[in-house]
Amino acid sequence: MFDQPLAVLAPDALDAVHDQGMRILEEIGVEVRHEPALALLRSAGQSVEGTRVHLDRGFVMEQVAKAPAHFTLRGRNPARAVEIGGGSLVHTPVGGSPFCSDLERGRRDGTLDAYVELTKLAHAADAIRCLQSGVTEASEIIETSRYLDLDYACLRWSDKPYVCYGTSGEKAADGVELAAIACGGREAIAQTPAIIGIVNPNSPLVWDSLMADCLMTWAAAGQPVAMTPFMLAGATAPVSLAAGLSLQVAEALSGVALAQLVRPGAPCLYGSFFSGVDMRSGGPALGMPEGVLATLAGGQLARRYDLPYRGGGGLCSGNAVDAQSAYETAMMLWATYHSGSDLVLHAAGWLEGGLTASYEKFVLDLDVLRMFERLREGVIVDAEHLAFDAIRDEGPGGMFLASPHTLEHFRDWLFLSPLFRSQAHPTWLKQGGATADVAAVAVWKRLLDSYEDPGIDAAIDEELRTFIARRKAVLDE
Amino acid sequence: MFDQPLAVLAPDALDAVHDQGMRILEEIGVEVRHEPALALLRSAGQSVEGTRVHLDRGFVMEQVAKAPAHFTLRGRNPARAVEIGGGSLVHTPVGGSPFCSDLERGRRDGTLDAYVELTKLAHAADAIRCLQSGVTEASEIIETSRYLDLDYACLRWSDKPYVCYGTSGEKAADGVELAAIACGGREAIAQTPAIIGIVNPNSPLVWDSLMADCLMTWAAAGQPVAMTPFMLAGATAPVSLAAGLSLQVAEALSGVALAQLVRPGAPCLYGSFFSGVDMRSGGPALGMPEGVLATLAGGQLARRYDLPYRGGGGLCSGNAVDAQSAYETAMMLWATYHSGSDLVLHAAGWLEGGLTASYEKFVLDLDVLRMFERLREGVIVDAEHLAFDAIRDEGPGGMFLASPHTLEHFRDWLFLSPLFRSQAHPTWLKQGGATADVAAVAVWKRLLDSYEDPGIDAAIDEELRTFIARRKAVLDE
Repeated sequence: MFDQPLAVLAPDALDAVHDQGMRILEEIGVEVRHEPALALLRSAGQSVEGTRVHLDRGFVMEQVAKAPAHFTLRGRNPARAVEIGGGSLVHTPVGGSPFCSDLERGRRDGTLDAYVELTKLAHAADAIRCLQSGVTEASEIIETSRYLDLDYACLRWSDKPYVCYGTSGEKAADGVELAAIACGGREAIAQTPAIIGIVNPNSPLVWDSLMADCLMTWAAAGQPVAMTPFMLAGATAPVSLAAGLSLQVAEALSGVALAQLVRPGAPCLYGSFFSGVDMRSGGPALGMPEGVLATLAGGQLARRYDLPYRGGGGLCSGNAVDAQSAYETAMMLWATYHSGSDLVLHAAGWLEGGLTASYEKFVLDLDVLRMFERLREGVIVDAEHLAFDAIRDEGPGGMFLASPHTLEHFRDWLFLSPLFRSQAHPTWLKQGGATADVAAVAVWKRLLDSYEDPGIDAAIDEELRTFIARRKAVLDE
Repeated sequence: MFDQPLAVLAPDALDAVHDQGMRILEEIGVEVRHEPALALLRSAGQSVEGTRVHLDRGFVMEQVAKAPAHFTLRGRNPARAVEIGGGSLVHTPVGGSPFCSDLERGRRDGTLDAYVELTKLAHAADAIRCLQSGVTEASEIIETSRYLDLDYACLRWSDKPYVCYGTSGEKAADGVELAAIACGGREAIAQTPAIIGIVNPNSPLVWDSLMADCLMTWAAAGQPVAMTPFMLAGATAPVSLAAGLSLQVAEALSGVALAQLVRPGAPCLYGSFFSGVDMRSGGPALGMPEGVLATLAGGQLARRYDLPYRGGGGLCSGNAVDAQSAYETAMMLWATYHSGSDLVLHAAGWLEGGLTASYEKFVLDLDVLRMFERLREGVIVDAEHLAFDAIRDEGPGGMFLASPHTLEHFRDWLFLSPLFRSQAHPTWLKQGGATADVAAVAVWKRLLDSYEDPGIDAAIDEELRTFIARRKAVLDE
């Protein structure tokens, strides 16, 4: 009930956006800068002139219909498998941040140590059911082969499924290989995927060689691909939401169609990363009304296409863990919860438009996610909760602080957070007057202390390490 | 579409809450510590034993049905009249704060100067359509007659309608008199009310003499009364939401019934101020899931009774304008916008559980309210917004930053805020690295500079001052 999807597009507006998406594919077409992809599209009867492909709407929708509406994602521990689809709200931590920051050590380049710490924090967090390879970059490791260390850390320090790092076909292929080693082999993960791949077309309307290669590699291996146009209204898209949504439809569905040509039935997600441009900086203005509306509209479109939805997340533009970042993140998380989102990337820890993975924001966001989980439970109305006898026993003018009904239930029924407190101002001052970012330091330390190594089978670990060493020898020569 | 009400009570749960509210009135009853109220209830055939009144559900619902579903509130400027009802979302600033704070002058006792400043800020703010007398206290003025200065400032420095200060029958009566002087006389404001009164029963289930007196005074004068139980789950109510909601029904509807006995058809609001107790401090934990769910459920109850709803607001427990306060406030404002709220008290500026009126938070909250107003406009889908030609003109790989469609529309279509910015981190640092609270100082100063005195008719002003002087002579002797 609480998380019922909010419609921001009326049925006829939804039709109009879809129709223009199809018209774009037919009349303008997409650039596909990847020979094997062009060959596939040509042989499927689509019009290919050079790298420009005009796609027929009948063909596109026929391909989209082949993608499943939901699927299971299973990492190396079956008990931590997640269903993706039907509004599943599977959260991942922030990912792709070149920097990381915490108040004790400051803002700094990401390192493998910091990344492993953040991965352990994500593993220890109940609200995070899927990890992300590359929460922060391991900047001290040579870039050519760094992705192997990042994917490995997800497999070694956690047994949750994860978003694969891959930013090229080669990296995607190695990512699939690592997952296959840890999760029962290529055939097993083709049956039940172990990782998720994210691809971002070069908006507007370009599938470059790197992204098309990723897409086809993951799809061929049966690993789900989230087709996520990066729509920046006023930059990569027109300044109006309706136009950007129609571009999103054209880009995402052309990606889905390509994946289905590679492997019919390959799991695909309809992805949305959509904000307005801040004309003062040229950067994305995250957590603003454009992003909220687009997140909600994207969910409507995904449901129209019966595809799982990757949308929303705890996005913000703010540069500090302050009121701005919190308002922006809260706006986006509410939109996420009412968009029917299935896979929520960057649900916790996102700061500075994603450039920094913040330890303090990570634990603050986790508590906000816990609030939403409580909200989804709704208002329970039964005899025990209606508590007529407790009301009669106290009677008019009574006080329930120490009543038996309160003492019996307050621990289970009241939301309690280490970060969201309500001390009187003098007490708060006496306790140090810590703002929420400062108070969060102790909380992420406790969470890190609570981390338990899931362990890994020694033979599998050896095989992973051998594979990585062999690949590094080639890549880093 | 965006602000469609969210249901957190299923129809049978709503029935069960209502039913228990009625059962409480019939079997437990309410304490009414006010002779004229008891006399009215007795003569209406209700069971009165001492101060305990048992109310018949048929009688209560019959009275509730007499209250209008919506009404016009009109202060001294008819152009600023507002409709209350049907999800009208009329915002007021924070009210009742003994302290005020801004980063330049610090946290301090409220004064008349600060109160007038805050009133001018509220007058200057488009998002605030109704003021509150006593945004902060004028602590240097003797308490016995301070309310006269507070109500006067609303009438003198603004021409918007306002929430009357009254916390006793005498104060309420003087408040009515001041409004009548400024707004065309008692007959005129009885026809179209000029002020709103707030009453809080002493939860659970007590109408004390002060509140009953206020209620009857405002109702007799035809001024709307918001019946607002203060439900603190685990303190003034059982620890379960369902129980608190049933108490809220009993308290609010007994107030409405009393108002209808005083003056059939008197406008009344179903009010909700509901949070869980923070067991660590004994205070209300604002902005937490309990408050969000109760705000949404309260809206469902108000609609069931066909009464305008006073619910939600920018409430928080945080002691600083930090991430905590912002998350809490955002949670509550989302709940407000999806509860069908009609009158939103404390929509901007609330800090420290309401003990402090914060200048910085006031302008931050205003921008969040502006975001919600943009969200309510939804996604416009027409040929101009779909912008097919702009997409075709740029084509694949294009860039819309300088496209004619962008240049023509970005000023009107993109949300822009002085406080929510997206500078790159080095730029932000170079510009001073101000957190949002610090950046807000310049914004409230600009808003205060933009204030324009609406003026007041000299004869009316003289009459108001004469009345106040006469009353002060009596009260302060």
